Amino acid sequence: MSESSPLETNPDRLLPADPGTREVARELLSCVEHLAIVSPHGHVPAATIAENAPFANPAQLLVTPDHYVTRLLHAHGASLASLGVGGVAADPREVWREFCAGWSIFDATASGLWLTTEMTELFGITEVPSSANADRLYEHITQRLGEPEFRPRRLMETFDIDVLATTDDPLDDLRAHARLRDDTSFSRRVLPTFRPDAYLNAHAVGFVDNVERLVATAGEGRSGYDGYLTALQNRRRYFIAAGASATDHGVRTPLSLRLDERGAADLFDRVRRGGCSDTDRDAFEAHMLYEMARMSVEDGLVMAVHPGSWRNYDADTYARCGPDTGHDIPVAVDFTASLRPLLNDFGKSPGFHLVLFTLDETTFSRELAPLAGFYPSVYLGSPWWFLDAPDAMTRFRAAVTETTGFSRYAGFVDDTRAFLSIPARHDVARRVEAGYLARLVIEHRVTLARAREVIVEVIDRAPRRVFKL
Amino acid sequence: MSESSPLETNPDRLLPADPGTREVARELLSCVEHLAIVSPHGHVPAATIAENAPFANPAQLLVTPDHYVTRLLHAHGASLASLGVGGVAADPREVWREFCAGWSIFDATASGLWLTTEMTELFGITEVPSSANADRLYEHITQRLGEPEFRPRRLMETFDIDVLATTDDPLDDLRAHARLRDDTSFSRRVLPTFRPDAYLNAHAVGFVDNVERLVATAGEGRSGYDGYLTALQNRRRYFIAAGASATDHGVRTPLSLRLDERGAADLFDRVRRGGCSDTDRDAFEAHMLYEMARMSVEDGLVMAVHPGSWRNYDADTYARCGPDTGHDIPVAVDFTASLRPLLNDFGKSPGFHLVLFTLDETTFSRELAPLAGFYPSVYLGSPWWFLDAPDAMTRFRAAVTETTGFSRYAGFVDDTRAFLSIPARHDVARRVEAGYLARLVIEHRVTLARAREVIVEVIDRAPRRVFKL
Amino acid sequence: MSESSPLETNPDRLLPADPGTREVARELLSCVEHLAIVSPHGHVPAATIAENAPFANPAQLLVTPDHYVTRLLHAHGASLASLGVGGVAADPREVWREFCAGWSIFDATASGLWLTTEMTELFGITEVPSSANADRLYEHITQRLGEPEFRPRRLMETFDIDVLATTDDPLDDLRAHARLRDDTSFSRRVLPTFRPDAYLNAHAVGFVDNVERLVATAGEGRSGYDGYLTALQNRRRYFIAAGASATDHGVRTPLSLRLDERGAADLFDRVRRGGCSDTDRDAFEAHMLYEMARMSVEDGLVMAVHPGSWRNYDADTYARCGPDTGHDIPVAVDFTASLRPLLNDFGKSPGFHLVLFTLDETTFSRELAPLAGFYPSVYLGSPWWFLDAPDAMTRFRAAVTETTGFSRYAGFVDDTRAFLSIPARHDVARRVEAGYLARLVIEHRVTLARAREVIVEVIDRAPRRVFKL
Repeated sequence: MSESSPLETNPDRLLPADPGTREVARELLSCVEHLAIVSPHGHVPAATIAENAPFANPAQLLVTPDHYVTRLLHAHGASLASLGVGGVAADPREVWREFCAGWSIFDATASGLWLTTEMTELFGITEVPSSANADRLYEHITQRLGEPEFRPRRLMETFDIDVLATTDDPLDDLRAHARLRDDTSFSRRVLPTFRPDAYLNAHAVGFVDNVERLVATAGEGRSGYDGYLTALQNRRRYFIAAGASATDHGVRTPLSLRLDERGAADLFDRVRRGGCSDTDRDAFEAHMLYEMARMSVEDGLVMAVHPGSWRNYDADTYARCGPDTGHDIPVAVDFTASLRPLLNDFGKSPGFHLVLFTLDETTFSRELAPLAGFYPSVYLGSPWWFLDAPDAMTRFRAAVTETTGFSRYAGFVDDTRAFLSIPARHDVARRVEAGYLARLVIEHRVTLARAREVIVEVIDRAPRRVFKL
Repeated sequence: MSESSPLETNPDRLLPADPGTREVARELLSCVEHLAIVSPHGHVPAATIAENAPFANPAQLLVTPDHYVTRLLHAHGASLASLGVGGVAADPREVWREFCAGWSIFDATASGLWLTTEMTELFGITEVPSSANADRLYEHITQRLGEPEFRPRRLMETFDIDVLATTDDPLDDLRAHARLRDDTSFSRRVLPTFRPDAYLNAHAVGFVDNVERLVATAGEGRSGYDGYLTALQNRRRYFIAAGASATDHGVRTPLSLRLDERGAADLFDRVRRGGCSDTDRDAFEAHMLYEMARMSVEDGLVMAVHPGSWRNYDADTYARCGPDTGHDIPVAVDFTASLRPLLNDFGKSPGFHLVLFTLDETTFSRELAPLAGFYPSVYLGSPWWFLDAPDAMTRFRAAVTETTGFSRYAGFVDDTRAFLSIPARHDVARRVEAGYLARLVIEHRVTLARAREVIVEVIDRAPRRVFKL
Repeated sequence: MSESSPLETNPDRLLPADPGTREVARELLSCVEHLAIVSPHGHVPAATIAENAPFANPAQLLVTPDHYVTRLLHAHGASLASLGVGGVAADPREVWREFCAGWSIFDATASGLWLTTEMTELFGITEVPSSANADRLYEHITQRLGEPEFRPRRLMETFDIDVLATTDDPLDDLRAHARLRDDTSFSRRVLPTFRPDAYLNAHAVGFVDNVERLVATAGEGRSGYDGYLTALQNRRRYFIAAGASATDHGVRTPLSLRLDERGAADLFDRVRRGGCSDTDRDAFEAHMLYEMARMSVEDGLVMAVHPGSWRNYDADTYARCGPDTGHDIPVAVDFTASLRPLLNDFGKSPGFHLVLFTLDETTFSRELAPLAGFYPSVYLGSPWWFLDAPDAMTRFRAAVTETTGFSRYAGFVDDTRAFLSIPARHDVARRVEAGYLARLVIEHRVTLARAREVIVEVIDRAPRRVFKL
């Protein structure tokens, strides 16, 4: 692309090609485009909002921490170190130059969409980033970041984010959340989410130490499995008191297993000592997923499950750069057999909400829709990660709706660390829903009047209802 | 949706959005919309037609026995008992009220499409069902059900069902079928289908007793495996004499296995005694699928296989409500390795027809189309159950046709217990075929003249030819 | 279809139905339709070009050796023997008649598209083949085949094939390639590809003998595993000297395994003796895939992997007709776990190119795009075999592009034995890319200016760059 190409965000972007369908889609979009954002799951730290410091620089803001962006630059030949990934000191101007030079590799990707929207709508940039204009854009954005309206809290107002759920370690003191809750000048909600992976995933590095710390901190002096369960329950209560409505589970598989108390306690002892077998670790993780459901039935926390990613796939990159650096690779997932113990015992429990996410599209029509179409507890999580993109979202809709209708959907989840991308991501979801529903209207499968209701339900009411916000 | 919203069935429903493509689709639809219905596989009891009694009431007719409907109401919070499922006594007016109140959850589902067509076309209802009009609609439908034209036989004429295949227990005396065949005033064909699951699926409840009964009834006094095979062959002959053209197999997996006679006989003895291993049971089922193919090669019955559903997934619901109550959940299926023993021995046998159905869409392009594109015996069953819906059917077409063309398709199968939904279901299939072919015409991949022939072949000739009707 | 139906190739074939999108697609197609063909992987023998003999007859040219064609005729009732498959002597006129009589079964298939284009564009045929005109068409084509412009070299000019890569046995002397290279009157490039399956796939018939021959020929007198590796390296060098840029691997699974040298040598000895366990054979194949990557890192040959086909599925047909006779059936594939040893060690090696093909569409979005979106070595192979068709290619684009953009694609590969179909196949790919990109333009996801660049990149530059041509 020539270096002075214009960068634009078209008002009809992502709407269906057929003019009649597009007309309906525009009308449906108009029903939701001004609604506040509900973000029931994401990775923006509460401290970012609480401290309200200006963002550091364009590279730190838009490149280095976003593994969607750095992974593709890496595939295209950049070293992660040169992008500042993994705590490596890198000149942000250099990082930014590398990013701008590689801008075109993001064409037609989800990241490309989000970045374009951020650049144009947020920073008023009107030319395609390139080597030639990288420094100029860097200055321009840096200047904007210094302005008061670019502080996180002001942006949260500007973005009209009503609720933002964060993802937090069970031992987090949630002070940032408290500070925000207690600040009467701030009307937006920032809620914690209980993410206990580090204390449940027995294969994870540091698991044994984490468990020890957990029991010591919150086990009320009890030991062994009893102390462990007590500590987990205590920390869940602490989160609930701080406003949490959900837990979140990043598991390798959705395997669940019911052990009797004695069996579970023995297994815990073996796993806790370290050096046990992989089979033991797998069984422990499966049992603890079951236990988390049991606790959710008791305390009402919504349970979100994100399975099927082989985390830290590239051992060398993990050793050098740590986790979340772009090399988590999905694998095939089975929900039907895996979740049966859990669903047979808790799937029909009143008030229990289990939101299932997947990176394996084959489960949309085969397993997830049938499960959500029977169990009152099971809700369909929005297309996740590699699937959080217009065509994939459209496939999701077409794959599940004929079995479940619209009522079993948990609403869009942006799942992002990139605060500035939140409006762009929700915008994409709204456009996809509008386009999908418009097709149904044109095909006389729902009436236009009903589609206007459905899009509001799906965009606004579903996440509030399913995530108990 | 406001309670007085109009309920309509648009003549262009389900046709493609693009106006030029829709025009062609309309023309193609006109080639088949007045053709008689051929229904080679379904679950309407022959006795319903033979006895020709009026339908009981709207709830019994449209809600309680339809697990597509009750499952989604259940997911939405209704108890199955309140819907009369599982033989529970429930006031049909209450069931109907619950159904009407939940009408909107079926929006954009396959069931929603069928129900809307039934309501409007069959009962002349013009308003969306709701709590407010539930009683009025109940009265209206009840009154129509009392009229002579709503008796099953008259409906079979009105629906213009030429052939209706039922699904029957091998020990059924098929008296209802005989009565219909002998009734010279009734010109439609109602044919039995041999469904031996209860006598082959060694994991099924009651298997041992069933086998004993089978051998005692039809084993010609022989015992052991010999008596068992003899009984099966005898009952197949009985079905053929009664007009059957096909067998149907609901199996967990399509695994097939060739055992020598001694090995099979020993395995039969172990399995028959009960208390054998799961491995033995799996092997027995796989071997018997192979044997069914062998018998089909001999006696000419078409063999239809429906694998990949985890039946009665929710143990508690099964205990309370029994089978076919909405919690059969699909699992991933492998056809390639599983069917190899069967196909290597019988796949090229003259006259053998093997119709493969799936709930796992991933097998459409990967396994089913390649198999049907080589073996003269293998035919593609229409998208089944959760996939019997417009978008899923369109995906099926796009996934298989580029490999197999149109000649390997077995035709649409409604597979329904809901007699009144038969025309609506076939109507959807015809519209999907018209829309798919119209796209090919517009993309200059088939000529309009050829598409007119293909749609008649696919809708009318294929099921007659493949199911030997 | 009536026997005198016209046969046509429409200039708008395969372009999107929506008129606005089609207009853009036409414009994008015009950017690439006159570009030379780059064919980095296929099965046309170099000798065909080198010897430049006239093609034998229409049946030998278009039917008998094309297992895409004979398989569907076989499914439709023809015997492979009657089509001349497997070296059976068959009257080519009879073969041709059978093919013409069955012409309509190819409607809407990929083969149907290619054949129609060949018939119309190449032979100027204007009527649909049928029993009635079979003999006439036979004469017509036979006459054309006798003309000088139908000799292979002239066709290579007419088709404007810039580079054609063949697929060759490691012990091939590559004399035909040398002859072409040395012929100054011939300006096109015909390059060998190193395909060592017969020497690596320990399950293959003849493996033990093949290995012995390999080591004897190229092992420099060394024995055992050392001689085996030496021979492979030597032959790779020989291929490189003859112009090869790539290796190609037809493996059952993409499993890779790293063994230490001692373990590998012991395993080699066991496998080479024959009679070892299947587990040993699997391990050996997995280890050798790893070794091939290691050698590629060293010598720079691009590594193309084609996994997931159960070769020679029908034992009886294989015994009678040999390999590549239409009954290779795909199975589900896992890339993520399988390739991890290989990718962890070589995935980031400078200059290493690994092109992954699949017959299992489920891996497009789940595994292949994420892998290619991180590893600089991993490229997405074009949709292969059963997936080399317009709708499947469109699904591929929609499944991978949102994760990887356009830069991770290896370009179209025709993979064909059917020399005359090469232009038709590349034409389909160009049209699909134009249609896909046009949709993105209309949906404002890429600009028209950028789409014009992307289509040239994808069609022309990508295969040259990725396959190092």
